Amino acid sequence: MPQHPEFSDILAAHKKIKPYIHQTPVLTSASLNLLVNAELYFKCENFQKAGAFKFRGATHAVLCLAQSELALGVATHSSGNHAAALARVALSEKIKCYVVMPNNAPRVKVNAVREYGAEIFFCEPTLKAREEGLQQVIKKTGSRFIHPYDNYNVICGQGTAVIELMNELQDLDIVMAPVGGGGLLSGTSIAAKHLNPRIRVIAGEPKNADDARRSFISGKLIPSEKPNTIADGLLTSLSQLTLGIIRNNVDDILTAKEETIIKAMRLIWERMKIIVEPSSAVPLAAILENPEIFKNQKIGIILSGGNVELSHLPF
Amino acid sequence: MPQHPEFSDILAAHKKIKPYIHQTPVLTSASLNLLVNAELYFKCENFQKAGAFKFRGATHAVLCLAQSELALGVATHSSGNHAAALARVALSEKIKCYVVMPNNAPRVKVNAVREYGAEIFFCEPTLKAREEGLQQVIKKTGSRFIHPYDNYNVICGQGTAVIELMNELQDLDIVMAPVGGGGLLSGTSIAAKHLNPRIRVIAGEPKNADDARRSFISGKLIPSEKPNTIADGLLTSLSQLTLGIIRNNVDDILTAKEETIIKAMRLIWERMKIIVEPSSAVPLAAILENPEIFKNQKIGIILSGGNVELSHLPF
Repeated sequence: MPQHPEFSDILAAHKKIKPYIHQTPVLTSASLNLLVNAELYFKCENFQKAGAFKFRGATHAVLCLAQSELALGVATHSSGNHAAALARVALSEKIKCYVVMPNNAPRVKVNAVREYGAEIFFCEPTLKAREEGLQQVIKKTGSRFIHPYDNYNVICGQGTAVIELMNELQDLDIVMAPVGGGGLLSGTSIAAKHLNPRIRVIAGEPKNADDARRSFISGKLIPSEKPNTIADGLLTSLSQLTLGIIRNNVDDILTAKEETIIKAMRLIWERMKIIVEPSSAVPLAAILENPEIFKNQKIGIILSGGNVELSHLPF
Repeated sequence: MPQHPEFSDILAAHKKIKPYIHQTPVLTSASLNLLVNAELYFKCENFQKAGAFKFRGATHAVLCLAQSELALGVATHSSGNHAAALARVALSEKIKCYVVMPNNAPRVKVNAVREYGAEIFFCEPTLKAREEGLQQVIKKTGSRFIHPYDNYNVICGQGTAVIELMNELQDLDIVMAPVGGGGLLSGTSIAAKHLNPRIRVIAGEPKNADDARRSFISGKLIPSEKPNTIADGLLTSLSQLTLGIIRNNVDDILTAKEETIIKAMRLIWERMKIIVEPSSAVPLAAILENPEIFKNQKIGIILSGGNVELSHLPF
């Protein structure tokens, strides 16, 4: 069984990455509180560098590399926020970054990765083609693979957001995060349970991509099969590492329907005047679908990111 | 000549309204700074209650009324943010609010005013019909008219945002605000020049509604004639009071083309992940069109509001 990070690892990661990241604000909305009969505190990782919490994990993973590794650069396969985050870290640290992207990746994500100066290798849009493409790049360049979530140091980095949140708010009843591959949820749950053993950690997941919930309940890795959700950051499946951590530390994973995710996203845009991507709205969607669980609770919610194609909004 | 507010009036207004308003955050964007070769500090009044700085002036005007006046309520004619702000203040203070709105006002604005519990009177979409409608309402109800900008106490309230901004940043070279009727610009310019006599106060105005610039240059009130701009908060014309204040305290009014306003708005949305309405983007648009004026300057910009119909975006 792979080793699980401890709170002290996440605390050390926070100290390490602090000079590089934004300490993002925690925002509230009186009208949303009224709507859900609860107190919501939104940790705005949509304001994080490169527009998502992914910058925390990518930064920590790069800072943990040896000089000899840095000299050869980093690589990943991703069509999303992790690729942009890793590319941005690499740009700041003046190291090479190689990204294998499916040739149908959204133009806006390709542009973000390119803008940060990463070298892009396009491949067919299958997991097999991505992994083969990555192996070729690594073989050719000697670069170090930074997995988006199945990576000890990445998980430690993602766990730092909730430390900032709980430093501001000591008496939360519940902490929520969305779950895709489980990196954010893993780091968050370890840190939150250490800081307050009585806190409940509840994840939000799209009903149309509920592999994490099914894995969580069964205890076995159930891969995501043709997930069809607007929450494009949550298409990935848990790994053995993240499943183990989540089974140990998370209280529940609640799903939300597509229409509720869109409704929650619009509520956040309209009431809070901030831009979040659909994945970020999934915890609020889970609250809207399960009001009895959250009534009168003080809830911290990690808004995971704000990278969205403005020309293709669902409303 | 109507009496101009002094800094002490604005400071007193700030003390008075502080328990009622949000102290909005000041946000920055490294990538926008890089783009314009300057340091930009955005005072986020889009996060203000009712979604715009207007809540400051409306709150102050209501708090300045006598008990006997409060008993009869307040009234205004507006299709925009001032109506929503006044309605929200009235709701909190448990007083009546009457709003005369043109029958072609955007559904979203009508809904906001209605949601805050104001009584709406619809009229033909002409200034004459609005003013006549308002006179009838006042005659019938005895309510007190709170003008959106041609009002001493409203101007004092609007000037409080820049006090918060300059408390955070003592060494700004330039302060910017958009200009429509001139309430925000009046209060801002009085407060900014008092706090730092060497600061330059520069307004942004749509080229397609440049009556304020023309009035500012000529010294005479030139009313807005059929203005056609996406910046729907800036369609109004200066009053004798705001023109006088602006002539005394403002260094320049720069115009921006429609396409630049839309570009600036999109930049703020994409780079800062916050929602601003087109009017808020006009100062940044003026910077984009006049890079030589702003190069290497430290600039505070008041983002005036965030009320926008998400289903009708210009991009």
